[in-house]
Amino acid sequence: MSLDLLFHPSSVAVIGASRTPGKVGHDILAGLVRDGFAGTIVPVNPAAETLLGLPCYPNLAAWGGKIDLAVVVVPNELALAAVEESVGAGAGAIIVITAGFRETGPEGLNREKKMVDLCQRRGVRLLGPNCLGLINTQNRLNASFAGALPEPGGISIFSQSGALCTAMLDLAAGRHLGLAKLVSIGNKADISEVDLLSYLAHDPQTRVIVGYLEDIATGNNFIKAAEEAATLKPVIILKSGTTAAGLKAAASHTGVLAGGDTAYGAAFKRSGGVRADTFDALFDYATALSMQPLPKGNRVLIITNAGGPGTMAADAVEKAGMVVAELDRNTATALRARLPKAASVGNPVDVLGDADPARFVTAIEAAQDDPAVDAILVILTPQAMTRPAETAIAIAGALNGSKPVVATFMGGHDVMPGRQELAAAGLPDYESPERAVSALRGMVEYAAWKQRPPRLVTRFRVNRRRVERIISRRQRTGVLQLGEVKGKDILGAYGFKVQDGALANSAEEAMEIAERIGFPVAMKIVSPDVIHKSDMGGVMLNLANAEAVGDAYELMMLKIRKRVPGAFIEGIYIEQMAQKGLEVIIGMSRDPQFGPMLMFGLGGIFVEVLKDVSFHLAPVTEDEAIAMLKSTRSYDMLEGRRGQKGVDITAIASGLQRISQLTTDFPQILELDINPFIVGESGSEPVVADVRMSLAPLTEEEK
Amino acid sequence: MSLDLLFHPSSVAVIGASRTPGKVGHDILAGLVRDGFAGTIVPVNPAAETLLGLPCYPNLAAWGGKIDLAVVVVPNELALAAVEESVGAGAGAIIVITAGFRETGPEGLNREKKMVDLCQRRGVRLLGPNCLGLINTQNRLNASFAGALPEPGGISIFSQSGALCTAMLDLAAGRHLGLAKLVSIGNKADISEVDLLSYLAHDPQTRVIVGYLEDIATGNNFIKAAEEAATLKPVIILKSGTTAAGLKAAASHTGVLAGGDTAYGAAFKRSGGVRADTFDALFDYATALSMQPLPKGNRVLIITNAGGPGTMAADAVEKAGMVVAELDRNTATALRARLPKAASVGNPVDVLGDADPARFVTAIEAAQDDPAVDAILVILTPQAMTRPAETAIAIAGALNGSKPVVATFMGGHDVMPGRQELAAAGLPDYESPERAVSALRGMVEYAAWKQRPPRLVTRFRVNRRRVERIISRRQRTGVLQLGEVKGKDILGAYGFKVQDGALANSAEEAMEIAERIGFPVAMKIVSPDVIHKSDMGGVMLNLANAEAVGDAYELMMLKIRKRVPGAFIEGIYIEQMAQKGLEVIIGMSRDPQFGPMLMFGLGGIFVEVLKDVSFHLAPVTEDEAIAMLKSTRSYDMLEGRRGQKGVDITAIASGLQRISQLTTDFPQILELDINPFIVGESGSEPVVADVRMSLAPLTEEEK
Repeated sequence: MSLDLLFHPSSVAVIGASRTPGKVGHDILAGLVRDGFAGTIVPVNPAAETLLGLPCYPNLAAWGGKIDLAVVVVPNELALAAVEESVGAGAGAIIVITAGFRETGPEGLNREKKMVDLCQRRGVRLLGPNCLGLINTQNRLNASFAGALPEPGGISIFSQSGALCTAMLDLAAGRHLGLAKLVSIGNKADISEVDLLSYLAHDPQTRVIVGYLEDIATGNNFIKAAEEAATLKPVIILKSGTTAAGLKAAASHTGVLAGGDTAYGAAFKRSGGVRADTFDALFDYATALSMQPLPKGNRVLIITNAGGPGTMAADAVEKAGMVVAELDRNTATALRARLPKAASVGNPVDVLGDADPARFVTAIEAAQDDPAVDAILVILTPQAMTRPAETAIAIAGALNGSKPVVATFMGGHDVMPGRQELAAAGLPDYESPERAVSALRGMVEYAAWKQRPPRLVTRFRVNRRRVERIISRRQRTGVLQLGEVKGKDILGAYGFKVQDGALANSAEEAMEIAERIGFPVAMKIVSPDVIHKSDMGGVMLNLANAEAVGDAYELMMLKIRKRVPGAFIEGIYIEQMAQKGLEVIIGMSRDPQFGPMLMFGLGGIFVEVLKDVSFHLAPVTEDEAIAMLKSTRSYDMLEGRRGQKGVDITAIASGLQRISQLTTDFPQILELDINPFIVGESGSEPVVADVRMSLAPLTEEEK
Repeated sequence: MSLDLLFHPSSVAVIGASRTPGKVGHDILAGLVRDGFAGTIVPVNPAAETLLGLPCYPNLAAWGGKIDLAVVVVPNELALAAVEESVGAGAGAIIVITAGFRETGPEGLNREKKMVDLCQRRGVRLLGPNCLGLINTQNRLNASFAGALPEPGGISIFSQSGALCTAMLDLAAGRHLGLAKLVSIGNKADISEVDLLSYLAHDPQTRVIVGYLEDIATGNNFIKAAEEAATLKPVIILKSGTTAAGLKAAASHTGVLAGGDTAYGAAFKRSGGVRADTFDALFDYATALSMQPLPKGNRVLIITNAGGPGTMAADAVEKAGMVVAELDRNTATALRARLPKAASVGNPVDVLGDADPARFVTAIEAAQDDPAVDAILVILTPQAMTRPAETAIAIAGALNGSKPVVATFMGGHDVMPGRQELAAAGLPDYESPERAVSALRGMVEYAAWKQRPPRLVTRFRVNRRRVERIISRRQRTGVLQLGEVKGKDILGAYGFKVQDGALANSAEEAMEIAERIGFPVAMKIVSPDVIHKSDMGGVMLNLANAEAVGDAYELMMLKIRKRVPGAFIEGIYIEQMAQKGLEVIIGMSRDPQFGPMLMFGLGGIFVEVLKDVSFHLAPVTEDEAIAMLKSTRSYDMLEGRRGQKGVDITAIASGLQRISQLTTDFPQILELDINPFIVGESGSEPVVADVRMSLAPLTEEEK
């Protein structure tokens, strides 16, 4: 059901309206009246005849008309009745401000569910409970106790923290930043971030969507809604609780490393949501993205009237992974002719300490025309001859809207008239060069996502049936850890090359298998109970003849029985010695919110010590898989260095795509590590040397 | 000579004073008069009889008295004469505002030198040229055109960028932040950052020293002055141009990696200067350090009236490498008794959205008494019942000065009265939780430096004489690249264990040497012209008998002559095969400013691909050497992982201390790489497997 009546009601009831200033029931009613909501306002309170000059009713039945939106501010134990009453009066949307539900424990959750069930049965949308309400500047609807109606503008905000709603509203007021809508989503019992992303995506007043989230209810719906919204307008998200979660316990490397905040990062990357790391960045990004056009690339030109801050900005551009633009030769020549001799026409363009407004304009006009410049940062310091306000007006007048321009007028007193002119002209202004650059980085990131190539996920031909059989048999028997033998079976069915080998259950069988596949061979214990095989003496390499293989069999069995008493041992796996090549790890860990997360890293110490890995949500395209490789610090190792040949990058990418397909096809696979995955030079096929998987147990239904 | 007369003159002459507002000669005179400097002010201008109500003189001789401080604002070509005139009138200090010197080229530099020579001969200190002058709020001396006299306070600023002086002054005005002194150091022809650090260290008005630098004149003097100052009060430095410099060309790994900004970072670390990475951080740190006591450790307690921002702050604390404090059990019990039931008494302590000032005070008092808390962050969001101003006053009243307290009152309008109260009470207040945490991190860093153990540099017994001989012989012959043979000779003299080996000049000699030291052996070409030996076929390993050694000799010579035609080949080095162990690299690169910079890293890919290395200025103590190991990402590799034994950490540290001593003893050594340095388990002695050094050429004098 649409949220239209939530944002555009023609009548609003306040159930629990109060005459006492400071009480929420008073403040909400007062906000509606004071801020000039043009529709009908119906206060409901059995103990009052009029409130704030409006006729007051003991209940909605007494009023008798139809209500579009009801705001419930009654004590907790009366909330359900108030919701019932609102539904009865034809409400299309209800805001439950009242707290004391899910956040207080199971009993509260139960009460909350009753309200939601009622609403959902009757097709009514519910915001909250335990929220501050909402604001829509378009129709001057302030159904909140978050503060006064802000100036109208293009930024819409939703926040899971009511306190942050008020802080953001207060900040917007201080900066004269216009808002479209502000929504406190509270417990998200019905209306969640997903609904708001979908609604605001199509809201013509909203140019930028800003969200503060502490958790996400349904990962896949979030990704879908955020991606749809980001296709239409920038979505900026601040997600807190990033480090506290810590790493979860998991059997695979991938599972361990995928803990904490990684999945959220992967989800934002997939969906095009620009992630703000700090509260400052949230507003800094929103300001730039709501006021300025998107850059076409990442080359930044700095225009300054002082060398020092120009250098600081250039430092920040490089650190942010953007490029200090190199001016086109024609631009440099033109600037050289029009600026004083002492001016620098490199990057930064230094228009000198005595620059008048015209000199800034000269530089900005040239930069706007220069095809080698994607974005412009203007820095002004207040020097003896500087005229901040006139400069701001002149700069704003020179903009042609072709490229984003942001400004830093440094200082806090003399420059303020200039900063006010910038704000009035819609030119984003930041306190320091570093923050201005950070805002540009947010723009560049979003622009790059918008320009991404179409996502074409390859479907490989595989033997899905075979995998289905293996998995369902294992699930039925409850042996949910898959070791090397079954794991390789599954990967083989999905087109992976695995080393030739077989399971032996006696020394004689081991010798026969070794003779069949050829010497030298490696031998590995196969047991769900032995995790670190090599530490336990469960791996022997380079066995050169049948006798050595037979002896090794006896020895390994002896060792393991002694070191891991009672271990269930399936046998010993005999296989070809690994081919030479670079050892990498590719894996998957299933996130409860966002599904299969693929991981790539170089093997051994790179994973174990340096944790130099990258993640992406499945399914991945080839481009995305290659981007995963490139985003590790050790990527140079793959490309080869100092005369050594590189390895086959696309072959690794193909491996990632295949496990992407496998784990998308089989939600039963919870974790998967191919470690090592041995890759060779370009044109060679990588080999799975070892693999480990774990499966979900059958649910009660499946049993 | 002291800077006393610069900051505390009883008479000031303005040579080049002007009647025209907007001219620097006017603005400086006007500043002196307007801001109420209490001493004698003498305007000098041949074309005026009075200026701003003061009698004006054609020259200082005409005035006839003694001048303490002269400010020179005349055109460039008259500056030297003005300086002469000032010296003649007994000036103890001269500020040359006039530009057009060193910054314009060699001719300007020459003019600048003449002024400085004159001053130095006569014992007069010179500030500038090409600067904005200086301000001292203590005696209301505003001898600058940087802006109006700021409010008096404890922060003193020096800046190499005049524009940043004005921006910082303007920012301080906007934030009502008090300053002690502001100095624009311009071209630093005489008075430099070193003089100012020394002076401000002992200036009783200055509580915190803030500096903006683009370069540093004399590295060792800077370190000495900064360390002396930091021992007495915090020194905060913003150094720009950090990334632009790029990597310099160098023959050693250490040399390549030591490029760019590394030496500055090492210098600040050594001297206790807190480095600000951004313009925001510079003021954020200064505010906290000038207003609050130092923390005793890094455990931060967060007190908040809202969950979301509390979580954001906790995230930031962890990301900054500090600790989210765990409240003492008694504190938690006490808080539980005194706060509402719904309040959280963990960390963050959540005093709830309806918190009154008293509730904040309760939490702060408990935190101040809690031995498990080192620093306190108070977060306030403007909610319906929040009283920002009263809360600020109550918080300020509750502080007992035992621990640093910083605040974030989030928002921009309703909270402003509260923020003003905080500022008035000397409680640092930041726009976001993240910036408040960053300020705390600056405090923790400085406090840790102050609490560092005494620096005791070990002197090892070495054969210095032997090294002297090798180096002077090589310098005389001009063969400045030292390879493995001579390098090991030198390291042996400084107590390193080197692999047994000798240089062979024929196949027969090679075989004899190999037989003497025992098989298997390794063979390496020795030639200053062959840099990447193994790529050129100049390394062979694991040769098992004399015949193999002889053959290898012929083959290697053949290959190298073909691949590096014309290479000067000293012979082939025959040595024991390397012992097993972990390969690390230790090295030194001599920075032109700061002298020998020591480097540590794990060998191979860790250095070449991941650039995972750390630096420290020599001489290092054992503690500092161990800290170098710990600050690499791969430190876990040294400690051992998953059942493997770790290596001897102190043995690596000892190696670093020995090259520290070697390169401090011999400034002729420009670069040194011990790569690999093979380290074994605890108690074993590491072995130098290869080494490369380069020496400085003899200077003309030395020849």
